[in-house]
Amino acid sequence: MAGNTFGKLFKITTFGESHGKAIGVIIDGCPANLLIDIEFIQKELDRRKPGQSKIVTQRKENDQVEILSGVFENKTTGTPIMLLIKNKDAKSKDYDHIKNKFRPSHADYTYHQKYANRDYRGGGRSSARETAARVAAGAIAKLILQQHNIQITGYVSGVGELELNSNKDAIDFLEIEKNMVRCPNKELAEKMENYIQKIKKEGDTIGGKITCMIQNCPLGLGEPVFDKLHADLAKAMLSINACKGFEYGSGFSGTKMKGSEHNDIFTNINNKITTTTNYSGGIQGGISNGEDIYFNVAFKPVATIIKPQSSIDTNGEKVTVLGKGRHDPCVVPRAVPIVEAMAALVLVDHLLRHRSSQI
Amino acid sequence: MAGNTFGKLFKITTFGESHGKAIGVIIDGCPANLLIDIEFIQKELDRRKPGQSKIVTQRKENDQVEILSGVFENKTTGTPIMLLIKNKDAKSKDYDHIKNKFRPSHADYTYHQKYANRDYRGGGRSSARETAARVAAGAIAKLILQQHNIQITGYVSGVGELELNSNKDAIDFLEIEKNMVRCPNKELAEKMENYIQKIKKEGDTIGGKITCMIQNCPLGLGEPVFDKLHADLAKAMLSINACKGFEYGSGFSGTKMKGSEHNDIFTNINNKITTTTNYSGGIQGGISNGEDIYFNVAFKPVATIIKPQSSIDTNGEKVTVLGKGRHDPCVVPRAVPIVEAMAALVLVDHLLRHRSSQI
Amino acid sequence: MAGNTFGKLFKITTFGESHGKAIGVIIDGCPANLLIDIEFIQKELDRRKPGQSKIVTQRKENDQVEILSGVFENKTTGTPIMLLIKNKDAKSKDYDHIKNKFRPSHADYTYHQKYANRDYRGGGRSSARETAARVAAGAIAKLILQQHNIQITGYVSGVGELELNSNKDAIDFLEIEKNMVRCPNKELAEKMENYIQKIKKEGDTIGGKITCMIQNCPLGLGEPVFDKLHADLAKAMLSINACKGFEYGSGFSGTKMKGSEHNDIFTNINNKITTTTNYSGGIQGGISNGEDIYFNVAFKPVATIIKPQSSIDTNGEKVTVLGKGRHDPCVVPRAVPIVEAMAALVLVDHLLRHRSSQI
Amino acid sequence: MAGNTFGKLFKITTFGESHGKAIGVIIDGCPANLLIDIEFIQKELDRRKPGQSKIVTQRKENDQVEILSGVFENKTTGTPIMLLIKNKDAKSKDYDHIKNKFRPSHADYTYHQKYANRDYRGGGRSSARETAARVAAGAIAKLILQQHNIQITGYVSGVGELELNSNKDAIDFLEIEKNMVRCPNKELAEKMENYIQKIKKEGDTIGGKITCMIQNCPLGLGEPVFDKLHADLAKAMLSINACKGFEYGSGFSGTKMKGSEHNDIFTNINNKITTTTNYSGGIQGGISNGEDIYFNVAFKPVATIIKPQSSIDTNGEKVTVLGKGRHDPCVVPRAVPIVEAMAALVLVDHLLRHRSSQI
Repeated sequence: MAGNTFGKLFKITTFGESHGKAIGVIIDGCPANLLIDIEFIQKELDRRKPGQSKIVTQRKENDQVEILSGVFENKTTGTPIMLLIKNKDAKSKDYDHIKNKFRPSHADYTYHQKYANRDYRGGGRSSARETAARVAAGAIAKLILQQHNIQITGYVSGVGELELNSNKDAIDFLEIEKNMVRCPNKELAEKMENYIQKIKKEGDTIGGKITCMIQNCPLGLGEPVFDKLHADLAKAMLSINACKGFEYGSGFSGTKMKGSEHNDIFTNINNKITTTTNYSGGIQGGISNGEDIYFNVAFKPVATIIKPQSSIDTNGEKVTVLGKGRHDPCVVPRAVPIVEAMAALVLVDHLLRHRSSQI
Repeated sequence: MAGNTFGKLFKITTFGESHGKAIGVIIDGCPANLLIDIEFIQKELDRRKPGQSKIVTQRKENDQVEILSGVFENKTTGTPIMLLIKNKDAKSKDYDHIKNKFRPSHADYTYHQKYANRDYRGGGRSSARETAARVAAGAIAKLILQQHNIQITGYVSGVGELELNSNKDAIDFLEIEKNMVRCPNKELAEKMENYIQKIKKEGDTIGGKITCMIQNCPLGLGEPVFDKLHADLAKAMLSINACKGFEYGSGFSGTKMKGSEHNDIFTNINNKITTTTNYSGGIQGGISNGEDIYFNVAFKPVATIIKPQSSIDTNGEKVTVLGKGRHDPCVVPRAVPIVEAMAALVLVDHLLRHRSSQI
Repeated sequence: MAGNTFGKLFKITTFGESHGKAIGVIIDGCPANLLIDIEFIQKELDRRKPGQSKIVTQRKENDQVEILSGVFENKTTGTPIMLLIKNKDAKSKDYDHIKNKFRPSHADYTYHQKYANRDYRGGGRSSARETAARVAAGAIAKLILQQHNIQITGYVSGVGELELNSNKDAIDFLEIEKNMVRCPNKELAEKMENYIQKIKKEGDTIGGKITCMIQNCPLGLGEPVFDKLHADLAKAMLSINACKGFEYGSGFSGTKMKGSEHNDIFTNINNKITTTTNYSGGIQGGISNGEDIYFNVAFKPVATIIKPQSSIDTNGEKVTVLGKGRHDPCVVPRAVPIVEAMAALVLVDHLLRHRSSQI
Repeated sequence: MAGNTFGKLFKITTFGESHGKAIGVIIDGCPANLLIDIEFIQKELDRRKPGQSKIVTQRKENDQVEILSGVFENKTTGTPIMLLIKNKDAKSKDYDHIKNKFRPSHADYTYHQKYANRDYRGGGRSSARETAARVAAGAIAKLILQQHNIQITGYVSGVGELELNSNKDAIDFLEIEKNMVRCPNKELAEKMENYIQKIKKEGDTIGGKITCMIQNCPLGLGEPVFDKLHADLAKAMLSINACKGFEYGSGFSGTKMKGSEHNDIFTNINNKITTTTNYSGGIQGGISNGEDIYFNVAFKPVATIIKPQSSIDTNGEKVTVLGKGRHDPCVVPRAVPIVEAMAALVLVDHLLRHRSSQI
């Protein structure tokens, strides 16, 4: 049983390989009569697209999205929405040299073993290029969330050892899209940029961290006991290429706290029930409580490096893999819109699920 | 759309409230002809059950499991397996005082807002008592894994600031079930026990961390692009009460590493392909690569504390919540079998999924 | 991948064997705050239960239903509802003689081949006893439909050659529960009763037909292109034991009609849009159009007959199967509440699905 | 919750409107390493395509299929297969006159009420054009079935009152594709052709019936209690446009039979267990028993007729609908490959499901 569908009611199925004819996504379950702002979808794709700055991969894809179905006179019809993105700058020959070799810490080896027949060009289906389809679908999810005034903001909170300290460092959401790294603190952003360029020159790559904040999430989203809101967010994030971890609210630091410190005290301020702290991260018992939802996502360093590495080939023989192909020195700047898109997909799915549970 | 089912092919649906008549689970999709060792299931439940030591809740439940269907002459028949656990020591009156009050950082408030009609006794459906059903189902999953020689071992790797340092501290799996905390290092286990007892005397609670290791996992499990093996493990873990985070392989520490350090080099040792390091945590591209799978799970401190706390009631009025009811001072010792059970459910589900993908 | 779950949003999972400890069902997705009328559920079960009249099987089961979870202070809580029915009058010894034999046109042979380990007692899982769980769950679905004023009425429209002619024969819904056969025409009912008794004396069985009418179904239910309302009704009906066919609206007789006869002309009567005929059977393009929904369900004769039959055993040897065990001479009188229950489950599922599709 | 996905393990999701840019399908769950014969897929599409003979609609679509993903070096890779068919001969202007009118017995009214925003051109999503995507996906399913030597053969068994009598009329499968009607009896085929042409001249349409036979189906397919093989076949067939009924094995005629006539006696012929009759239609207890599977599917007359009809418009006003647009006088000749495709999809799905249930 394959796993290319995400969501239960707002359901996306993605397809496509890095160097195939096209990638894309079908959204099934988008409510009818939603006004589709194609420019907004394109803008979201542009935030993810390669070649947008000097610290990301130089593959040239304009990632132009085309709507093939499900929209009539600019509004959704309640039928499946098909979004197509054609591949343009696919330099497949760059990959001939790894046809029979397994690049370290890539998916080459496991795909080869699981499927036998593997499109090795640019990583095929395992390439992060697939996430463009998620961003396109996520943009439509965001259009629904906008109607509910729900705001999702992702940003880079760590590049290697350079980490944003939310207690000390100023955070300015308006700063995020102003710098190449997508860090909400200008000074730190500069340091991160310089560091990524240095890493790139070394032919190396570096890991990083993204923080995501969801504001104005309505109370009641999440379906215990298994489909808790944070459990679905965790799955969504861990499904993104290179993701190694997820924590929400107090997260791993919560393991070191006492209940008397960690408990969020309820209080009634002007007939609005709120909590004085938010270690719960906006979710209690798996259900959103109306406070801000926030979580961190860990990304490993990109596996493609411009250094020769020892490996094996499909015959089990020892070989050397040379670093070729265009790639990102650090994945997090371009992963911000992907994290946001996956969060948007989870929220819309749970909005619809919550609605379906009312008599 | 409710969320009480977990798994796609090996599918469990749990039911029951903390102080209702019974809790239990239906397993649909268990292959036929599996020999059912009822004593093993009971032993797994005993590892989770309350009252097993002085550092856990003193509620007395013998958690006796009964098989109502799906097993004939000690073997599964391929039909749904119904496992029932009756509730015995349900002191519902302990909870009258919180009938109309929302305990801080519990699910009282969100359940009340989402469902209106809420079984407040012992937390109702949101109680960790529900996890007994998962452990029972997980035990059957483990019986399948045993046939494949797959071994799952969970242990406590952190209680508050006391953390196991895998580089320095000796780890002995045989030690785990010998101490009350389920820590694989005897000295640290003693420190943790003493610390938990101290916390308990203070009427407080403390967070903790569990590490889980999966050995002998066959190559090929996991279904990209969404149902990556680690994504399903993340969801499984985050669906456990009090869980705040998940990381696998290098996890959050991987965000600080360079590609040249992090890449796991393939090598061929006696015709077995393996990697010289395992920052990947046994999973590449979402598919198991045959190396050990390992991950960490973060748990917050239990919300119930024996201290008066300010809160609000169902009318939005300010009230004081007094700490009553039996509870754990630290959740991790009893959560070890739960983490293992959820991991076992994910693995069996993916074993069956992988099989279904062959022509 | 097993198939013991029905429905997507109002989801039931049944379990249990004919001669096991109990049968039952978990409903996941029932909205909260539904008033549960346990007497109504029991009454529905009584309509299906064995021993209710002289023309049905004489097995004695009072089919007492017990609610183990999901209901608090008589109202649903939005959590899984577990309904348990214990088996009482299980004369398993009646079945020792068929332990190794395959009864003709039963499920013995196919279960044996598919699962190897088979609970042969009373047909095990393949017994129509399982449908009691469906009727219990369907009763709760009916409680939801009552709030929407939707009415489901099933009745026997054929027993062997005795068929109700809807053009000639008077149909009185109030008559249905007054006679043992559940036929809405008193005279025909008597003929059917006599005929069934005659068949029974011969040690034989006879097939039959049920018609089901759904009144006041709101416009808009059904989800093209695959989950058309009638497609889900068809699947629901064909999943009932002994069912051989389904037709709705004009059905098979529609194959002989011209478009000019068959088309249902829209008309506006006092601002209510309706159709002058209803060959569409209340569903157009897979979506309910507000007219009455009606369909026919075909049932084969029960396979258990009190006559010796030739067959084979588990070794492939020729054997004689003697007719033993209690059974129905004609399945349709007791199948009426089952057909209604399955229809109710489909409708509630689609009510919730329709709701979830609105922004 | 929308319904554009069919299947659980071999899962198809179709998209597209009759007069949109394209229609198509994603197959998720196709096993890797299947050799893809693109010409075979095209040939199947040609059997369904409009304009193929004088008794079908004259819309000109060459229905050229394009594979956008999931196939590498002519073999499947285990990743999603995207099949695209562009729309060419979309005469949208033909439909301007029905923009605000509801054609009798079409889906115009129900789509309008359910979704509000409706692509009225050519019926939009409700058009049978969508079934081309099913045929394309079904062709790939057939390629899998060929490897198992499973043969699916559909044919027209009724056009209006002209019905094939399986007891009297000779049936020759080789005849089916030789005549325009796809009837396996040459003489009857001619009568049917003449009759359809007569109906067409009258500007009218006529209903019909298709019979489908599945040979060499392995024993063990089907998942009780809900996903019985015939229940999934029923749903598959009823999901096809214009379908009104389904019966398998003895079907509706079985309602008139006695158990002693209807029971299929098992016998052992040369170590092959078989039945002397096959009223069961190759399925017992919801599981295939190795005998031929056969079923009938009823189709209503096409709703589009070349005669003025009374109707209402979107304002509820009385209007006249004139018959325009290209359409089929009788749906069954072109529906044969659709019935086969849906049957193939069900079988492959159950093949994979059956496999996944083995330890």
